[in-house]
Amino acid sequence: MSTNGVDLNGHGIKNTPYLSENQSQAFLAAHADEAPPAGKKLKVCVGGGGGFIGSYIAKRLMAEGCYVVAADWKENEFMKPQEFCHEFHNFDLRILENCKKVTDGCHHVYNLAADMGGMGFILSNQSVLLYNNTMISFNMLEAARQNGAKRFFYSSTACVYNEDLQKDPENPGLAEHMAWPAKPQDGYGLEKLYAEEMALAYAQDFPLKVRVARYHNVYGPRGTWKGGREKVPAAFCRKACASETEFEVWGDGKQTRSFMFIDDCVHGSIKLMYSDCGIPLNLGTDEMIDMNAFAKLAMGTRGKDLPIKNVPGPLGVMGRNSDNTMIKEKLGWAPSISIKDGMQVTCDWIHDQIQQEAATASQDLAKYGTSEVVVQKTDTLDALDRKSVV
Amino acid sequence: MSTNGVDLNGHGIKNTPYLSENQSQAFLAAHADEAPPAGKKLKVCVGGGGGFIGSYIAKRLMAEGCYVVAADWKENEFMKPQEFCHEFHNFDLRILENCKKVTDGCHHVYNLAADMGGMGFILSNQSVLLYNNTMISFNMLEAARQNGAKRFFYSSTACVYNEDLQKDPENPGLAEHMAWPAKPQDGYGLEKLYAEEMALAYAQDFPLKVRVARYHNVYGPRGTWKGGREKVPAAFCRKACASETEFEVWGDGKQTRSFMFIDDCVHGSIKLMYSDCGIPLNLGTDEMIDMNAFAKLAMGTRGKDLPIKNVPGPLGVMGRNSDNTMIKEKLGWAPSISIKDGMQVTCDWIHDQIQQEAATASQDLAKYGTSEVVVQKTDTLDALDRKSVV
Repeated sequence: MSTNGVDLNGHGIKNTPYLSENQSQAFLAAHADEAPPAGKKLKVCVGGGGGFIGSYIAKRLMAEGCYVVAADWKENEFMKPQEFCHEFHNFDLRILENCKKVTDGCHHVYNLAADMGGMGFILSNQSVLLYNNTMISFNMLEAARQNGAKRFFYSSTACVYNEDLQKDPENPGLAEHMAWPAKPQDGYGLEKLYAEEMALAYAQDFPLKVRVARYHNVYGPRGTWKGGREKVPAAFCRKACASETEFEVWGDGKQTRSFMFIDDCVHGSIKLMYSDCGIPLNLGTDEMIDMNAFAKLAMGTRGKDLPIKNVPGPLGVMGRNSDNTMIKEKLGWAPSISIKDGMQVTCDWIHDQIQQEAATASQDLAKYGTSEVVVQKTDTLDALDRKSVV
Repeated sequence: MSTNGVDLNGHGIKNTPYLSENQSQAFLAAHADEAPPAGKKLKVCVGGGGGFIGSYIAKRLMAEGCYVVAADWKENEFMKPQEFCHEFHNFDLRILENCKKVTDGCHHVYNLAADMGGMGFILSNQSVLLYNNTMISFNMLEAARQNGAKRFFYSSTACVYNEDLQKDPENPGLAEHMAWPAKPQDGYGLEKLYAEEMALAYAQDFPLKVRVARYHNVYGPRGTWKGGREKVPAAFCRKACASETEFEVWGDGKQTRSFMFIDDCVHGSIKLMYSDCGIPLNLGTDEMIDMNAFAKLAMGTRGKDLPIKNVPGPLGVMGRNSDNTMIKEKLGWAPSISIKDGMQVTCDWIHDQIQQEAATASQDLAKYGTSEVVVQKTDTLDALDRKSVV
């Protein structure tokens, strides 16, 4: 790893000098018309603040001097609320009244809240996920409008892109315009694309600046790493730690993806929010890798080189990569943390997690060498029965 | 007009012998496993029962022996509740709790509820329309699931189709598969397409049979005919009645469409609901006409032949027609009432409406010779502030 720059997130990755910027201060200096009254902090709501990306964004904004309200229907698994926000509200954000409470008086609203997981999860009972996410997206947006927020950030996904453009593992990169005409591979992508359009319609109709990032596979420490909702990078780190004889990969392992380390994601999201860019932007790296090579890279972080065992499992598209032409043009910047550096930090962290578990309970390491397809149930829908308004 | 068949709706159009069928009885006879307990009627909810199409469907189902619960946030303008349903609930169907109340115990749910209007209306403040319709669609569907309904009907629209396929006035017809890859002309079409997918996801995940019709321009007596929410056929009938020197048409009048008379729409919707067809079907005629010819046809119903004045206005796509191959294959039937017959009945009715107005108030007929673009406001969104749960 290079050593210039500053390591704001404590990940030991310093090859990203931009992290030394205090973006919030720079934004307020450049946008006096949007600044809160003298002596007041910029008040920010982070929906989904209990989750992986949301908690990082909240923590970063707090470190930069914002007053941060985080809201989620779950607590963060790895941090206490006071570590990343001034207020934490354990609210069901599918309900408009709850969204209005948490965005009250907020100048900026980041919506990171979503019911999600990896391929195994999103393909089971898609309707539950669609219902939950649509309600969250629409009600956070409408609450931001009703409360007079100035800016709204929506976290979309690379899953919005037309699946027909992702049949070749040698995908040259998906440029933003390729989302239309639309044919996302599954309902999850369509839901995000529709929520993008909804946010853009609000920007057209109302005095609310909307910023949309299409995330490409974000990973890093404090992400979900077991239980079925984890995604490929965390699953591979876990397997790299736990596997002793062979390394399981879903499918033939020739599917390609690019992966973005959490520090790049946080920086890019805030940079986009503070920019003048009103169109959806890719936020991902263009360092594409196939799953077999990615497995070997993960094993390398633990000094292993086990044979790969390709097993049946959900695959997703064959090839996906981010085209970063537009983000470089609009933000003068693009994610650059290498997958090797990011995965080393992530695998080290997951290794520590497994060690901590082992210290407190008898542990069957073998279970961490495989990935499960968890089946979504209707419990979250049925919970709507009980009045969820706080 | 031909004289065979039966005139169930009192429109004097009898050239549709199918109208003599009692579809509900035939359905129950053929689906004993879905029949209610002996002595009980099939209980049906019609969301949007206060509106044009919804009230017709409700009335027809009631005539066929169903127990009909109609729900809407407005009363029907032209009929008293007891004329078309057993129970009418003036409820805001954007709210799940309200949807659950109106679908309680219902075997079948028809969702016709939507905030909508003609081109002039849907292009203003799209976000309000998207918010309202998405909430209605999702919550009616989820309520049907929670209440254990067996079948769910969703009224989609020809607006779901890719606008790039509708640039030629000589449109040969839009087949169902052409909705994907998607690029609807406006948010309204995207909202309907997404709601289709949501309903299909429910059908996949749960024991709920979903039927989706893509309506193509439905018209007839008791449709909105003034105020800015009316669509082309009613606007043209009104102008045919009111214009004395020239006839206003938005654009150059070369845009083409097909139009379906309400009797065909009602029959086709119920026929589809009772069928085994689980994929979205076009429900429209394939009798395409351009707006200038349509204006002349409308004038003909009043014995007029005024010069056409092409004025600036919202146009929509250039050419749209229904391809009825699939509906003929799946239902063995397609809409067939001619536009000439349907428009005569509709213009006669609008003529009567204008006469009734004239009898009760001084009237400025000239205002009915033009169409206005009404601007949607945020009042319906702001009303969410006040607790709308009944």
